[in-house]
Amino acid sequence: MKASFIIIGTELTRGIIQDSHGSLLSKELTHMGVHVSEIVIVPDDGSIEKILEALMRSNDVVIITGGLGPTSDDMTRPVIAEAAGVGLVRNPEAWSFLLGRLGDKAYGANERQAMIPEGFSIIENRNGTAPGFYGYGNGTLLISLPGPPREMTPMLYDSVLPLLREKLDLPEAERDEYTSFITAEAKLEELCGEADSALDWGTRFQDYRISLYVSGKTRKERDEAIGRLRERVGALRLVDGNTDALSMAIGSLRSHGATVSVAESCTGGLLSMLLTERQGASEYMLGSVTSYAAAVKMNVLGVSGRVIDEEGTVSSGCAEAMADGVRRLTGSDYSVSVTGVAGPDKDEGKDVGTVYIGLSGKDRETVSVLFRFTSWGRASIRRKAATAALILLSAYIEGEDAKAIAESWGYI
Amino acid sequence: MKASFIIIGTELTRGIIQDSHGSLLSKELTHMGVHVSEIVIVPDDGSIEKILEALMRSNDVVIITGGLGPTSDDMTRPVIAEAAGVGLVRNPEAWSFLLGRLGDKAYGANERQAMIPEGFSIIENRNGTAPGFYGYGNGTLLISLPGPPREMTPMLYDSVLPLLREKLDLPEAERDEYTSFITAEAKLEELCGEADSALDWGTRFQDYRISLYVSGKTRKERDEAIGRLRERVGALRLVDGNTDALSMAIGSLRSHGATVSVAESCTGGLLSMLLTERQGASEYMLGSVTSYAAAVKMNVLGVSGRVIDEEGTVSSGCAEAMADGVRRLTGSDYSVSVTGVAGPDKDEGKDVGTVYIGLSGKDRETVSVLFRFTSWGRASIRRKAATAALILLSAYIEGEDAKAIAESWGYI
Repeated sequence: MKASFIIIGTELTRGIIQDSHGSLLSKELTHMGVHVSEIVIVPDDGSIEKILEALMRSNDVVIITGGLGPTSDDMTRPVIAEAAGVGLVRNPEAWSFLLGRLGDKAYGANERQAMIPEGFSIIENRNGTAPGFYGYGNGTLLISLPGPPREMTPMLYDSVLPLLREKLDLPEAERDEYTSFITAEAKLEELCGEADSALDWGTRFQDYRISLYVSGKTRKERDEAIGRLRERVGALRLVDGNTDALSMAIGSLRSHGATVSVAESCTGGLLSMLLTERQGASEYMLGSVTSYAAAVKMNVLGVSGRVIDEEGTVSSGCAEAMADGVRRLTGSDYSVSVTGVAGPDKDEGKDVGTVYIGLSGKDRETVSVLFRFTSWGRASIRRKAATAALILLSAYIEGEDAKAIAESWGYI
Repeated sequence: MKASFIIIGTELTRGIIQDSHGSLLSKELTHMGVHVSEIVIVPDDGSIEKILEALMRSNDVVIITGGLGPTSDDMTRPVIAEAAGVGLVRNPEAWSFLLGRLGDKAYGANERQAMIPEGFSIIENRNGTAPGFYGYGNGTLLISLPGPPREMTPMLYDSVLPLLREKLDLPEAERDEYTSFITAEAKLEELCGEADSALDWGTRFQDYRISLYVSGKTRKERDEAIGRLRERVGALRLVDGNTDALSMAIGSLRSHGATVSVAESCTGGLLSMLLTERQGASEYMLGSVTSYAAAVKMNVLGVSGRVIDEEGTVSSGCAEAMADGVRRLTGSDYSVSVTGVAGPDKDEGKDVGTVYIGLSGKDRETVSVLFRFTSWGRASIRRKAATAALILLSAYIEGEDAKAIAESWGYI
């Protein structure tokens, strides 16, 4: 099986941004056993007609990304229709989706986003207005996807890979999926190789987590390797399936019908932002205080001057007092706090990456845990701290021992 | 002038590493005023013969990277020689360089690295054994470079770019850069076309801003077009150079030696997270309160029950009371608040995208402004609201009329 890709984007051929679609598609299709023979990157204003023709002659699949936007020169739709020997028609499903999403704004420039080659099927786009579509031209499977990564990437995983497996009749490689937190991708790959170098491991980094895929050998051998990996990284760091730390925290809050509040220092509002990201957040999230200055820790959250003088603002005592303070202030059932050194410089003599997380709950003992995160920069430490806080919040609500969990973590 | 690139590397088409040559070459050639029409990535074991033939027909320059290694299938040398209609000959300069570098090891597999198409010139490689080479085939300039980035990159800057400038007789291209806020990329492109469709516009979306590039015609004509665009989008929405709203806010805070605090509702901590993102944030940022629940607005920020009952939490009165409240709480010089409807559902009968921003400062009248952002989803409204808040905070500190600025904004 052979596949080629046409990646459309003037910002790519002008060198403003670097293409990532070619590499992502290559990785996933190679993984499925498909040979990638050519990746062609062209600007929006070019012509892909001859390129598509040439690629169709020697490939089983051609995937085209980009050129579907309302203001683009729209090189993709008519060219694919032409190559398939059909006309463009308004797809009822795509049009009703557009109307639902945009209302009256659907008329005009966006209108053509509902036009697809006759006989082709649409691929749902949850994050944008241009659906993808697929069909056949001269026996070659043609798949067209929007260019923006946050639209294209989920479509690839949710729809295109399953579609390819079905249409190309590829053997269902048994592949298990896990989600891993906080470990660096390169380190995780190293640990996977150590757990079982004969298995086929794959990773996908996504800001607050890494998706981990494993296939090969028998299920029993894969499970044993995952078991070894789990021991190395510690409790709750490698969980089954496709999930994220925010969903774990929200799941615990919802199943206990509980509310939460947040007190932050080094994460500066990131944890609060995450807890208010999903619709319906007001059902569990009451509010937060970012106490960046020591005075705000004292005057707003009620951290005592003694704690700050004796232990410092990056300390177990301060983390616990922040958590208690914000829970008292907001009246929430639970609260979580973060205080630490995001860098680039040491603070109060404490190393960059030192982070305390505090947890408070009604009828619960307030606890705090210490992490010493490897520093890959300010943003990375803030992300790691927020992720750890969400995981520990979930565990704390579930009545687990947050301190023991944190102590089991390696390679952070 | 048109150029295309052929990038050879199996690790690229297997998705093991992401290509960076295509983007680097694109950036540098675009900057020189050359139009990049196609970037083709192929594996080591493929054939570039037909691709090269097709590209030579429509380009002034074709650059090929990779396929020059001693163990590679050596697809590059004979294909280029064939395309140029010449044979391969041992280049004396390349051979003596190889002998000097490798000694006796130069004989054998490496020997062919001194073979180049007859009549072509070599390009010195300071970091490897394969020199590059260039010459003409059917009037097209063909340049072959080794694949490893630490060999290719210095050769590009030291030899290839000067060579291109000389051979293509290129003038220095002028390109102006601006940063635009809050307008959707498609809308901005439309407005650029309306401002002057004969100019060459380029955009690059980056979450909280869009970089805008313009070249063509004279400086005066470009400036006039930018002037028309500025009138359409309103004050402070299109600024010179490569910057962002956070830098504008931080710049104003630093130049006035002032501190700030934040009160958020629909942005949930995003604005606070941004204001603590850069190192040294503690010099200007004291803290924030995210009052997601109405009770937190009242109990922590001191918003009166009367305001909430009569105007609602998404209102001018609530935004102003939130700003005043957090400034009182933290003792900051200035404060900014955001309350609005991020969606997906209406709230208190107010449409999704309705956002009030409040500004408070010592010895300043507290003000609030209303925005009705076009909704492209929850995350987009939160980003727009935070960006607007940063811009208005900067203007407010500079003593400008925030209300008038907000009222001048179109296409939000």
